[in-house]
Amino acid sequence: MMMNRAIINFDTSVLDMIHNHSLEILYDTGIRFYSEKAVDVFKNRGFRVQGQTVYFEEKEIDNALKTVPAEFTVKARNPQKNIRIGGGDCLMAPGYGPPFIIEATGEKRNATLEDVHKFCKLVQTSEYLDFNSAIVVQPDDVPTATAHLDLLLSTILLTDKPIMGSTSSEIAALDSLKLAEMIWGSTNEPVMISLVDSLSPLQYADESVESLMVYAAAGQPVIIHSACSLGTTGPITIAGSLIISNATTLAGISLSQLLNPGTPIVYGLGGSPTEMRTGGYVNASPEDAQHTAIATVLGRYYGIPCRSQGALTESFSLDYQAGMESAMMLTTAALSGADVSLHTCGIYGSMLAMSFEKFIADEDLCGALKKLMKPVEFSKDAFAMDLIKEVGASGNYLMEDHTAKRCRTEFFEPVLSCRSIHTQWQEMELREMDQKAGRILENRLSTYKKPDINPILEQDLLKYLNQRKGL
Amino acid sequence: MMMNRAIINFDTSVLDMIHNHSLEILYDTGIRFYSEKAVDVFKNRGFRVQGQTVYFEEKEIDNALKTVPAEFTVKARNPQKNIRIGGGDCLMAPGYGPPFIIEATGEKRNATLEDVHKFCKLVQTSEYLDFNSAIVVQPDDVPTATAHLDLLLSTILLTDKPIMGSTSSEIAALDSLKLAEMIWGSTNEPVMISLVDSLSPLQYADESVESLMVYAAAGQPVIIHSACSLGTTGPITIAGSLIISNATTLAGISLSQLLNPGTPIVYGLGGSPTEMRTGGYVNASPEDAQHTAIATVLGRYYGIPCRSQGALTESFSLDYQAGMESAMMLTTAALSGADVSLHTCGIYGSMLAMSFEKFIADEDLCGALKKLMKPVEFSKDAFAMDLIKEVGASGNYLMEDHTAKRCRTEFFEPVLSCRSIHTQWQEMELREMDQKAGRILENRLSTYKKPDINPILEQDLLKYLNQRKGL
Repeated sequence: MMMNRAIINFDTSVLDMIHNHSLEILYDTGIRFYSEKAVDVFKNRGFRVQGQTVYFEEKEIDNALKTVPAEFTVKARNPQKNIRIGGGDCLMAPGYGPPFIIEATGEKRNATLEDVHKFCKLVQTSEYLDFNSAIVVQPDDVPTATAHLDLLLSTILLTDKPIMGSTSSEIAALDSLKLAEMIWGSTNEPVMISLVDSLSPLQYADESVESLMVYAAAGQPVIIHSACSLGTTGPITIAGSLIISNATTLAGISLSQLLNPGTPIVYGLGGSPTEMRTGGYVNASPEDAQHTAIATVLGRYYGIPCRSQGALTESFSLDYQAGMESAMMLTTAALSGADVSLHTCGIYGSMLAMSFEKFIADEDLCGALKKLMKPVEFSKDAFAMDLIKEVGASGNYLMEDHTAKRCRTEFFEPVLSCRSIHTQWQEMELREMDQKAGRILENRLSTYKKPDINPILEQDLLKYLNQRKGL
Repeated sequence: MMMNRAIINFDTSVLDMIHNHSLEILYDTGIRFYSEKAVDVFKNRGFRVQGQTVYFEEKEIDNALKTVPAEFTVKARNPQKNIRIGGGDCLMAPGYGPPFIIEATGEKRNATLEDVHKFCKLVQTSEYLDFNSAIVVQPDDVPTATAHLDLLLSTILLTDKPIMGSTSSEIAALDSLKLAEMIWGSTNEPVMISLVDSLSPLQYADESVESLMVYAAAGQPVIIHSACSLGTTGPITIAGSLIISNATTLAGISLSQLLNPGTPIVYGLGGSPTEMRTGGYVNASPEDAQHTAIATVLGRYYGIPCRSQGALTESFSLDYQAGMESAMMLTTAALSGADVSLHTCGIYGSMLAMSFEKFIADEDLCGALKKLMKPVEFSKDAFAMDLIKEVGASGNYLMEDHTAKRCRTEFFEPVLSCRSIHTQWQEMELREMDQKAGRILENRLSTYKKPDINPILEQDLLKYLNQRKGL
């Protein structure tokens, strides 16, 4: 009934201005699609096209927005773990895409398929993560052409939470659908969700847009996300960045609805400063948090569920900065009403690396925020008026039944974070968070249990992988 | 015009319920005042009183709420540093009250007057802190009876930002007024703000309520704050805790307005779990963040500016936990619309200790949040429509005038937090945040300049201190 989530206080007139400016860019400047197939879809529907650039009219965008659902369910292999997107929850997935692992020592190494498996086990045993990432890390010890299948199968077999489809290429998207069909049969219901990133400014790469087309045709949900590096791939201002990213995301939404009206979409946009000395993209900044806050408002304006960034940081160790930036980013997402948050666990500086220790640390943050967002109980028993009158002024509640009955369930309890007095803390054997996280990891991985699966289905899935690998 | 601040989405019916339940407790159970003077005020106004317990009727609370101003200005010695409370900004002050310092090594020691001086210099040179704390630390090397004067004079002489008055006793409050009179003359305008903490459940200690009476009589603003330790000094539930704290704060507001209708008030309430193994109060928790979010809603419901907690943590080092908890707490305060935030810089575990290094680290957080809250510029120049059209799809903005003109001012830049690629980070000389913070501290303290003051006034202030010390 009541969420502890906030509504960013934005004038509708400003949202109208952002929308109208975006329409102006869509009409005047257009969006460039590097995929001939995508351009052909627009041509066949009578859109104005010049070379690779497609121009959009207001009514075309309006039509697209009309058919996007406000909420939808993505099925999990375990139906109890289905997720409802747009229903008020902030659904969380771990890091997405990094090729590297940062070890507790600070060293960086290439990620492997075994790391993927370990992360899948952590996702499965996580109290707070709601679904898998498609590329929790990019393993370098399997053939690139079929790595998406290794990744997909890991999430399918080692977890029973919802999965993400691959968008590395049209073939990868088709493979994702094929595996899903083996599990759920031929279905129009969402059984995975996929992330399509546009290019800034105002472009779509062929691989990602052709993946979008595959998923849209199959009625499978797509997160369409656009982000500028402020001052290089977009204007240095937030206002300018919003126009570019919103226009680009709207163009992707238009394509999805042309192919299959009603395709579920999650609206996403971000944007962060360009580090002017290096040209790099700053991965956690108040400017990016501002984008998140405004993106959630625009999502509500369009009636489309919204995606935010997660526990991002520029740090490479479990220091104050890592915690501070991760929490600022994710608290903003949670409070401003994001429906889906990627990168909520494990991600380090520049989104280039995952860390097992940070994964454990970020889970405390995710758990705290899920408690923060949980509707406060305002029942008769929770108000406890009779008890308050009975205990009166200057009494104590410790020995009361009301306290005893609730004391094991009322509060959020962090796993890694420490609640000790100073003397205990000084004497702690594992005072360093990464050491303590290492112990928790060992325990989590050693008590992990593979979720049940029909053995014939498992064999079929593995057979498909081997066939595609040419084994 | 437009704030990036959020409005927590609460039904008015729930707020009415909290208010009405609070009135019921005020009427049935009453509030206990350990000060005879306070009880006499209520008696003389015809309130129902039994022993130390005062009972309140609805119309008495309503009358009080009618005269509390929605916003007000607190003067600084430097008029450019006056603060407007209730005007939309989130005003920040450093830690309040700890007797200890935690060194970068993790060692704990007693705080001294020299520490007070160093913190005052940091407040004065801080880009983000808006006013002083009354007790940034409690020095143990000065006589207790006059420590409040040492603290007050430090903030008055070493900074020209607004000060807080002392509430350690009636005498301390009178001393605070006396010093203020020497600076500003006899004035009814707010020249300081003071923190009055109630006791839970449903009580006021004599020192704090008598301080409240001194300040109210002089028209000086008071932050009235109530907080339960959930499960010991209040019910284990947030709903129950809200009733107790709201009732107690309302009683304090009533007293202030009886003595001087129109006395500016900042409304505050918090509440956090009791750590059931130790009986301690957990100083950073999603439950406390929920209290902050709801307190801001109640503040708006009553039309009174609201106070929140700050960068609280249970940690004792600059680790992930310290950053994560501090940012979760302060981001919630900032986004949910708190007007005043205490403890925003320097505070460590259990609010028992300050840290110079954490002070520097927390300033990055305060700065990032101030940027996050800053209204986004939606001007013609910021939208940069012509530029977007000119650069078009697949262009770059780096060499554009629009970028060059804004690149030094557009983004928030952290001071301590690091934005480096991994190889640079690995090679950093001062990779540990506390070491780097140490360097920044040295620099801040060595370039600090004492703000101007009339030398006669300075002598008079010091003479008063010495007199009161019997020197």
